[in-house]
Amino acid sequence: MKPVYVLNGPNLGRLGRREPEVYGTGTYDNLVAAVEAAGADCGLAVEVRQTDDEATLIGWLHEAAESASGVVLNPAAFTHYSYAVRDAAAMLGVPLVEVHLSNIAAREEFRRHSVISGVAAGVVSGFGFDSYALALRALQTLLGDTHA
Amino acid sequence: MKPVYVLNGPNLGRLGRREPEVYGTGTYDNLVAAVEAAGADCGLAVEVRQTDDEATLIGWLHEAAESASGVVLNPAAFTHYSYAVRDAAAMLGVPLVEVHLSNIAAREEFRRHSVISGVAAGVVSGFGFDSYALALRALQTLLGDTHA
Amino acid sequence: MKPVYVLNGPNLGRLGRREPEVYGTGTYDNLVAAVEAAGADCGLAVEVRQTDDEATLIGWLHEAAESASGVVLNPAAFTHYSYAVRDAAAMLGVPLVEVHLSNIAAREEFRRHSVISGVAAGVVSGFGFDSYALALRALQTLLGDTHA
Amino acid sequence: MKPVYVLNGPNLGRLGRREPEVYGTGTYDNLVAAVEAAGADCGLAVEVRQTDDEATLIGWLHEAAESASGVVLNPAAFTHYSYAVRDAAAMLGVPLVEVHLSNIAAREEFRRHSVISGVAAGVVSGFGFDSYALALRALQTLLGDTHA
Amino acid sequence: MKPVYVLNGPNLGRLGRREPEVYGTGTYDNLVAAVEAAGADCGLAVEVRQTDDEATLIGWLHEAAESASGVVLNPAAFTHYSYAVRDAAAMLGVPLVEVHLSNIAAREEFRRHSVISGVAAGVVSGFGFDSYALALRALQTLLGDTHA
Amino acid sequence: MKPVYVLNGPNLGRLGRREPEVYGTGTYDNLVAAVEAAGADCGLAVEVRQTDDEATLIGWLHEAAESASGVVLNPAAFTHYSYAVRDAAAMLGVPLVEVHLSNIAAREEFRRHSVISGVAAGVVSGFGFDSYALALRALQTLLGDTHA
Amino acid sequence: MKPVYVLNGPNLGRLGRREPEVYGTGTYDNLVAAVEAAGADCGLAVEVRQTDDEATLIGWLHEAAESASGVVLNPAAFTHYSYAVRDAAAMLGVPLVEVHLSNIAAREEFRRHSVISGVAAGVVSGFGFDSYALALRALQTLLGDTHA
Amino acid sequence: MKPVYVLNGPNLGRLGRREPEVYGTGTYDNLVAAVEAAGADCGLAVEVRQTDDEATLIGWLHEAAESASGVVLNPAAFTHYSYAVRDAAAMLGVPLVEVHLSNIAAREEFRRHSVISGVAAGVVSGFGFDSYALALRALQTLLGDTHA
Amino acid sequence: MKPVYVLNGPNLGRLGRREPEVYGTGTYDNLVAAVEAAGADCGLAVEVRQTDDEATLIGWLHEAAESASGVVLNPAAFTHYSYAVRDAAAMLGVPLVEVHLSNIAAREEFRRHSVISGVAAGVVSGFGFDSYALALRALQTLLGDTHA
Amino acid sequence: MKPVYVLNGPNLGRLGRREPEVYGTGTYDNLVAAVEAAGADCGLAVEVRQTDDEATLIGWLHEAAESASGVVLNPAAFTHYSYAVRDAAAMLGVPLVEVHLSNIAAREEFRRHSVISGVAAGVVSGFGFDSYALALRALQTLLGDTHA
Amino acid sequence: MKPVYVLNGPNLGRLGRREPEVYGTGTYDNLVAAVEAAGADCGLAVEVRQTDDEATLIGWLHEAAESASGVVLNPAAFTHYSYAVRDAAAMLGVPLVEVHLSNIAAREEFRRHSVISGVAAGVVSGFGFDSYALALRALQTLLGDTHA
Amino acid sequence: MKPVYVLNGPNLGRLGRREPEVYGTGTYDNLVAAVEAAGADCGLAVEVRQTDDEATLIGWLHEAAESASGVVLNPAAFTHYSYAVRDAAAMLGVPLVEVHLSNIAAREEFRRHSVISGVAAGVVSGFGFDSYALALRALQTLLGDTHA
Repeated sequence: MKPVYVLNGPNLGRLGRREPEVYGTGTYDNLVAAVEAAGADCGLAVEVRQTDDEATLIGWLHEAAESASGVVLNPAAFTHYSYAVRDAAAMLGVPLVEVHLSNIAAREEFRRHSVISGVAAGVVSGFGFDSYALALRALQTLLGDTHA
Repeated sequence: MKPVYVLNGPNLGRLGRREPEVYGTGTYDNLVAAVEAAGADCGLAVEVRQTDDEATLIGWLHEAAESASGVVLNPAAFTHYSYAVRDAAAMLGVPLVEVHLSNIAAREEFRRHSVISGVAAGVVSGFGFDSYALALRALQTLLGDTHA
Repeated sequence: MKPVYVLNGPNLGRLGRREPEVYGTGTYDNLVAAVEAAGADCGLAVEVRQTDDEATLIGWLHEAAESASGVVLNPAAFTHYSYAVRDAAAMLGVPLVEVHLSNIAAREEFRRHSVISGVAAGVVSGFGFDSYALALRALQTLLGDTHA
Repeated sequence: MKPVYVLNGPNLGRLGRREPEVYGTGTYDNLVAAVEAAGADCGLAVEVRQTDDEATLIGWLHEAAESASGVVLNPAAFTHYSYAVRDAAAMLGVPLVEVHLSNIAAREEFRRHSVISGVAAGVVSGFGFDSYALALRALQTLLGDTHA
Repeated sequence: MKPVYVLNGPNLGRLGRREPEVYGTGTYDNLVAAVEAAGADCGLAVEVRQTDDEATLIGWLHEAAESASGVVLNPAAFTHYSYAVRDAAAMLGVPLVEVHLSNIAAREEFRRHSVISGVAAGVVSGFGFDSYALALRALQTLLGDTHA
Repeated sequence: MKPVYVLNGPNLGRLGRREPEVYGTGTYDNLVAAVEAAGADCGLAVEVRQTDDEATLIGWLHEAAESASGVVLNPAAFTHYSYAVRDAAAMLGVPLVEVHLSNIAAREEFRRHSVISGVAAGVVSGFGFDSYALALRALQTLLGDTHA
Repeated sequence: MKPVYVLNGPNLGRLGRREPEVYGTGTYDNLVAAVEAAGADCGLAVEVRQTDDEATLIGWLHEAAESASGVVLNPAAFTHYSYAVRDAAAMLGVPLVEVHLSNIAAREEFRRHSVISGVAAGVVSGFGFDSYALALRALQTLLGDTHA
Repeated sequence: MKPVYVLNGPNLGRLGRREPEVYGTGTYDNLVAAVEAAGADCGLAVEVRQTDDEATLIGWLHEAAESASGVVLNPAAFTHYSYAVRDAAAMLGVPLVEVHLSNIAAREEFRRHSVISGVAAGVVSGFGFDSYALALRALQTLLGDTHA
Repeated sequence: MKPVYVLNGPNLGRLGRREPEVYGTGTYDNLVAAVEAAGADCGLAVEVRQTDDEATLIGWLHEAAESASGVVLNPAAFTHYSYAVRDAAAMLGVPLVEVHLSNIAAREEFRRHSVISGVAAGVVSGFGFDSYALALRALQTLLGDTHA
Repeated sequence: MKPVYVLNGPNLGRLGRREPEVYGTGTYDNLVAAVEAAGADCGLAVEVRQTDDEATLIGWLHEAAESASGVVLNPAAFTHYSYAVRDAAAMLGVPLVEVHLSNIAAREEFRRHSVISGVAAGVVSGFGFDSYALALRALQTLLGDTHA
Repeated sequence: MKPVYVLNGPNLGRLGRREPEVYGTGTYDNLVAAVEAAGADCGLAVEVRQTDDEATLIGWLHEAAESASGVVLNPAAFTHYSYAVRDAAAMLGVPLVEVHLSNIAAREEFRRHSVISGVAAGVVSGFGFDSYALALRALQTLLGDTHA
Repeated sequence: MKPVYVLNGPNLGRLGRREPEVYGTGTYDNLVAAVEAAGADCGLAVEVRQTDDEATLIGWLHEAAESASGVVLNPAAFTHYSYAVRDAAAMLGVPLVEVHLSNIAAREEFRRHSVISGVAAGVVSGFGFDSYALALRALQTLLGDTHA
């Protein structure tokens, strides 16, 4: 089976060095490890990537349309303005789950609107690294697997 | 350990008889069974309830503050206007996860705003019955349990 | 044939005792009598009810989905915020006509928006008790009857 | 007794040739016949007219102030911007009922606001040709007639 | 010298028969007489016209570009939406003064915005028939005449 | 003389257990005692009630129209959306004073708008339990009593 | 007969030294002379004053309530925010005409809204010094004088 | 083959006499000639008309539904408010291309919104007379012709 | 103990001469007397002042920071725009109660927003002169006194 | 003569694989071929490029300022937010035509606003690949060529 | 050479006694000394003043038009509403630099909009007393001096 | 000591070739030289960079968190929408000063809002190249250096 792409947007590579009261103290490497472990739990191969670059993220979504069985996407700040990422997500053809580490509904006003949610299968936000684990489980079900 | 309250708002008792293109064909009884199974998977006792009545829902949240270890809440239509439910949720003292069957970001404009998310620990939306299973897993982690 | 449910929302039980310059001097009992007479005129059995309680109104709409051939609904103040009543109306399966005693378009700004009209078959407003009689005639046609 | 003027705004002369999923398949001639029949049912003489021209419609409203006992007005697209028609309606002196074939609350955003309702006695919308029949019955009552 | 065109928009022909608490009791004929007298006072030939028809009003503005030394325009309800009248006024080439019988700033919200003022030389509102006399005096000065 | 009804909306029964930094540490029982003492100070019989239920609150307002000399109302979260409570308050016939424990103008944006104030005699907010004592004194004056 | 107060708001004392493309090249002294001449033309005694101080302007409006037969007010920048000047104008008891040198509808967005017009008898804007002469003539009529 | 109707809205008959910095110096006759030449280039019979009258324009659109193979429409100022023209365009049944001489996106705020574009096949704006030639070429393709 | 400053904003010195249907018939002198009596009732020395001048009011607030134990402030029209008064109030250091004679929530739209409430301890509005007496009692409690 | 740059924004490289009901079934290679053919028809050398990267697109616009005679730009999703692309377009110095495959006015609300149109010479939208051919013809005219 | 006027708006005289977490602990006297030192550093004579009075500030701006070579203006709360100060600034004729002690973009929503910036040469905000020193250096350059 | 990073966003590399009436005639090389000179004046090592690429700019901000003592950032068009740059700036840990060549408050409406200012220490705008010199001086003070 094709892997699930777990794609992370801008500044997430700096996790742990950034506002721990919002994002926790785990580093990006910790996140990758946690996601890989969660993937293993679900029996899903995962491909975890991060970029600060909108075009790179768009390219990965294009690639995922061919090579992935599903996508977990944390668009980070792109959530709030990148219609280009939205359009790439809209043409995926495989299920996409939007995730956020923090509960964006409880933060600044501008973070309450996602231009991407409208083309996602669903959204998981607020559970730190666990948001990804939950998204993988959601994908597992969407992809028709049996419970682990 | 105290059970997790899984509380459902107005019209959810009619599941399966209502707009299946939006909510699927499962009935409310199916939902209860699925939630109980998911609770068992997580090692969490669950108490599943549904009401069309705002005051009853508020009362259950008050009760949960004493008797539950956490709450999964699908506020249904109350999501969009019931500040009374919001205030009850804000005073819970135990973690609350907001869930939605459908991806509310992809529906009518008025469904895109939740008055409750701001006081939730996190939100899961768009995965049908599986939204509840994911919320229970999220709670399991929030409550400090080990992975099942 | 199943009866038509004629359902009235909050404060309508106080008709006649309330702002007569807006709602006229007839009492709720007068309204019930007028609606029953209008039903008889149309050859429609009517079941007239009033409640101040959102959950009760929702329950009646659920009941109507099984037991009524159509619904005349005066949501009163719920018109402007109760998405819970809207959702119950949306899942009816039989025609629903929204009525208002007063012409809500000619009153305060907040009364000009109905969250319910979007899921009604049609709307009749501004004709006092006669709004109900007109709504029953509208239902009669929608239900495929011949003109009385 | 003076007749009731039944005045129709722009594009209604093309009924039946226009978006039948919205307006039905009846033609304007069918509408005239249905309105005349409904008038006869109510014992009201009706004068049915249609124009695409704002000034003509305004002129008919001026004429109605002298020559009609009441007015049924389907302003069609003028509903949403013609303050000139509104002002003419405001100076009528006889009751005016606004009608719409479709339920404008369930269509595009711009159709949800009527600049004319504020000066109407009441509004009937969503019942196709029957909206006119209901409006005539409403006028019959407003004009103090006994039930037919 | 070319005359001043005094152009009146929709419903003004019905003056005196219309909401006297807003517009006073003088008739349109009284208005014409008052404007002609005021013109004579200023030594200005006036050509007073009224139409309910947007296109006719636009045509008169086109004509005025050739044949008038200035324009006094009471756009009536067109004030609030007719960008077509605005465009015609913008291409006049001679001074245009916008007038209103009533003080539109003290009436309904929608009357507070004029789409035409932006292309007028100035505005006079709130003085009944006298608004026109003042506008003529204003034009007299704009046209470089000496005080009468 | 009829008593003053002191009516409290949703979640107020949980006072003291809820966000003390906002509402203080006094319990609802403390509040009742304080209000009764303040009533005694003013020579007013008070009937203090609390409900989480909109319909119950509406019913008490209906009852107050018959049985109370005045009403002190803390609508709590209903303040911000319950037009049904507003309509019940509008038809009271006896003076109503709106109270809030906290200064709602200094809290979240959504708390700054009250749908009820427009039909109250006046508003007292920000003084904790003392808001009620002040409201009772206000009522005492409104009811024509002499100063205590 | 009491004089007419002609009151000028902030920065108008600097006329002629300020943005001549907007306000012309005449100085404030020229304006005073022009207003006095226009007053003489109308047979009205005028008292012309200017202040940059909101409280002084309010005081003059209070004084005018006792000592003036009418007021011509150019609120200048206060037009757009001084509700204090509005309240003073609202309690005048004698007619007030609002004037502007420039056509404020053709300038920056913020200049299009006057908080004062709603309590004026009428408004004259866009005619430079002549706005005042026209306002005096308007007052002359409002005060019941015959045409000069 | 049926001709293409090229329909022009208000004030366009005055082209060349109107704001040349916006619309250029060509007259309406020049425009007609240019459109006819462009039609000939494309092998399309064109019928070029202009009116200041909304109802006439609506009538031409009705006529076009029967007699034209396609429509090029410059709604001029109607672009921004005439829902009546929109409704007529929506019921055409043949392709309609909206054109503008100037780039309306670079002009006043109110010109940036078209109520008509939503029912057009496409829009061409900003190229002066050439906008029409391009629209004819667009229609040629839409009508299935080969490239000229 | 330091006195309480009771500070009144613009136009309040004209009380009784101004719109009695809104503000009552009592004069400013009556108000001073009533406030002094109410102060005596509470055992509070009061210093009552009024000014139409924003800077004077700001100065008094600065003075109060040194010389007063608390402040009762009726900002009158400054309520709606004077951020300068707000800033002065924010730096007081002693409790401030905002008062209004009328219920500003039931008046014009612009009166519903206070730029000052956010920095007040609480607000009392709608009770005429009694608003001040209630504010003094509120201050008495805030200052830790026992009930009179 | 310098070539015309035909620049395509994000996701357009995936044409044909993406939502064919919106964008048609042609691939990006088909588009390139069609544009080159249309360029040949117009006697214009074309340089067709596509990028998902905002900075690359900006760089091409900088390059075009030196090396191109004109630009056809399909900004795709950048249309709605990239002020950086707008600024690059504003400094071009050669004519730029904005194109869209679909009629963006008939799609989601957020697609109706272009941050780029304000600095384009003109806009062509809704004609699929033909939008480009039309834009090239428009450029041909803007560049002063004779008709092909 | 004429001095630079350094003008400070309302409440700044209370510096150091006011919200030190926002404005720091330096007093107004400290500020004057710092500004004078910074002026000396730049070789600019400075005239530092503070007022709580809008009219006084306007007067100083008028005076500056004659007597100053440039102006540094901290409008304090006037920033957000005083169009009168804006108009005075607009007519200065010498360069004006707007300064703020705090970074107003990082504070309450209402502080994010300045009605004055649009007529300033530039803005410096967020650097405490140093904002003034930087503004003086900016003026030094604007006035054509060499670097100190 | 670590250098100060002076980072420039999109299109700034084209300075001098772009709209000189807005940005002046100096080239980007001139800017670099001026900034380096200003750095030398302040005793600060500066590292000046420019990119059109959002991700590159984000990367430089990440690098600055490790390697710079402070940052001067001209986000250019990113100012208005790049929440990704904002997030990178928010996690810097060293002071950041936002600069603009032009006074963005005096330009198009969309330029008046910065999504970045809220996480800057302060802002300097409107002084051309000198904005950078001032920002460096501001940083010098923020970094605790003595005056040069």
